[in-house]
Amino acid sequence: MIQTLEWTDSGVRFVDQTKLPTEEIYVTSKTYQQVADAIRTMIVRGAPAIGVAAAMGIALGVRDSKAETVAELEKEFNDICEVIGQTRPTAVNLFWAIQRMREKFERLRVRPVSQIKQELTEEAKRMHAEDIAANQAMGNHGATLMPSAGGVLTHCNAGALATAGYGTALGVIRAAVAQGKKIHVYADETRPFLQGARLTAWELMKDGIPTTVISDNMAGAMMRQGKIGAIVVGADRIAANGDVANKIGTYTVAVLAKENNIPFYVAAPISTVDLACPDGSKIPIEQRNTREVSHIAGKQMVPDGVSIENPAFDVTPAKYVSAIVTERGIALAPYEESLRSLAGADVQVQV
Amino acid sequence: MIQTLEWTDSGVRFVDQTKLPTEEIYVTSKTYQQVADAIRTMIVRGAPAIGVAAAMGIALGVRDSKAETVAELEKEFNDICEVIGQTRPTAVNLFWAIQRMREKFERLRVRPVSQIKQELTEEAKRMHAEDIAANQAMGNHGATLMPSAGGVLTHCNAGALATAGYGTALGVIRAAVAQGKKIHVYADETRPFLQGARLTAWELMKDGIPTTVISDNMAGAMMRQGKIGAIVVGADRIAANGDVANKIGTYTVAVLAKENNIPFYVAAPISTVDLACPDGSKIPIEQRNTREVSHIAGKQMVPDGVSIENPAFDVTPAKYVSAIVTERGIALAPYEESLRSLAGADVQVQV
Repeated sequence: MIQTLEWTDSGVRFVDQTKLPTEEIYVTSKTYQQVADAIRTMIVRGAPAIGVAAAMGIALGVRDSKAETVAELEKEFNDICEVIGQTRPTAVNLFWAIQRMREKFERLRVRPVSQIKQELTEEAKRMHAEDIAANQAMGNHGATLMPSAGGVLTHCNAGALATAGYGTALGVIRAAVAQGKKIHVYADETRPFLQGARLTAWELMKDGIPTTVISDNMAGAMMRQGKIGAIVVGADRIAANGDVANKIGTYTVAVLAKENNIPFYVAAPISTVDLACPDGSKIPIEQRNTREVSHIAGKQMVPDGVSIENPAFDVTPAKYVSAIVTERGIALAPYEESLRSLAGADVQVQV
Repeated sequence: MIQTLEWTDSGVRFVDQTKLPTEEIYVTSKTYQQVADAIRTMIVRGAPAIGVAAAMGIALGVRDSKAETVAELEKEFNDICEVIGQTRPTAVNLFWAIQRMREKFERLRVRPVSQIKQELTEEAKRMHAEDIAANQAMGNHGATLMPSAGGVLTHCNAGALATAGYGTALGVIRAAVAQGKKIHVYADETRPFLQGARLTAWELMKDGIPTTVISDNMAGAMMRQGKIGAIVVGADRIAANGDVANKIGTYTVAVLAKENNIPFYVAAPISTVDLACPDGSKIPIEQRNTREVSHIAGKQMVPDGVSIENPAFDVTPAKYVSAIVTERGIALAPYEESLRSLAGADVQVQV
């Protein structure tokens, strides 16, 4: 079992995803500021994992607070949420997690400080466990959509490493494989951060699921050659109308899928659905440091003075999305209705 | 003026394209075997440049032959052509250049060995000069297709570095800029060899043409955001029906262009058109070493044991191609007719 992140007495322990696949190194963030840094520098990444990391970071900050009254603690709590909330703008799970911790705090404010600290820690650990359970439920729903055999393409890493465990898109693939489906995964390397080459390939190798890594610009050729029977990706935020923000390049994969009559599926927990966001044009897109594009493994690949763009995400319009797999079931178009119905359903995931 | 390759008394001098953009190093291939190595290892690359390099390699091998009779020389000539012809399979310009040298040899076989050597050298140098002239003619034709201002996307490097000089796709852009058009180039970095990031950006910077480098998977987002008014790429082989083999990822760019109603142009000399090849399915696609994908700047990016594909080219069906720009004019669909008409026309390009 891959331990993407876990709560320990000394802090939040992460596998350092910037070092994989050649080095499997674990680092412990001992303060909430260190958790914020881990999110910002992508030691931990992937929308659901960012959400859980945020909750754990808040719990850590609260636990270590010197506040003696609830009023003092609340002030610190707000400061902590502010710092955590400014790490990455696109993944809505970050804000969902902060909001959930905030609501928990509200319900606990009549309790003593020590109990608030304890229960916020429990809440963060619960969110970790719930995320794994949600991914397993998602996997079981989504596995029915996978072909019985053949190539399935994924982009970026929406696996155990992007979540508390099991994965969203890779959870769907894992569940399909567990059901006996003979799937060969094609993993886009996913420039500039190479999550596909480094992370998706690494965790699928651990599970013995056959995997081929390709550069992003090969996906079209693979589809045209008939090697890909389905596509499944994760999401960082899904608007109310079904528009999907996900890793840069997802839109391209979706357009290629449509052109080649290949189903394009998105797998994400309900916490990724942002009903307050009417459509994809309202989703903030993070621009990251251009050095991620210009330098690879420390080597300069772009001449000095050239402009570089580095949007971390793009938006895939809902019309390209064949289905959205959540832990509560599969949403089909029109997504405005199906997502609201699933999100509104007060279904409890069993942990 | 960028000297991609040139004939010198001591051999064929190349700018080493594997070292750009951080190092501008020139290497001289002193034997035809060294020229073959330079082509194979991509010290020189780009279909038209490969063609000229092949001709110069043959001329070099013939010049250094110890043969005393034409019969002996012919045997060596055939051996040289065999070695040069086995370097890279997709770019038809390689075979076009060999064929042209072979025809020249045929016409010269009644002459003394010394004259054959001299005239084959002259022929190779003439092909170098003709290629530049063809690119300038191509540029003037193609410039009319470029928008008066705004973003133009290109993939890989179809510039001065892919030719004897001036470039095919970048020749079109250079000519448009020379006409006063305000073009901003978006250069796909073009994994795995990064010709866009390393080479296209480098030569456009030298010319002062504004350039933004993006990773390949960002092109779709840029198109969807309305930043791209036209696309122009080169070609390694164009089938009789207008199907275009070009750097891997070109098909993806073409599909995205169609989806976003952006014209997609191909610029290539007539020597790139292979009328003997009925359609793209008959074009051999070179598979290169998987290490080009798995390792970047010497660093391993893919875990051990994972499969990798590395096709160097893909085929873009003619239906996605808005026009093919050649030195003899612009071909429009149906390409079966327009290409045959242009290729058959015995137009001499002025040098």
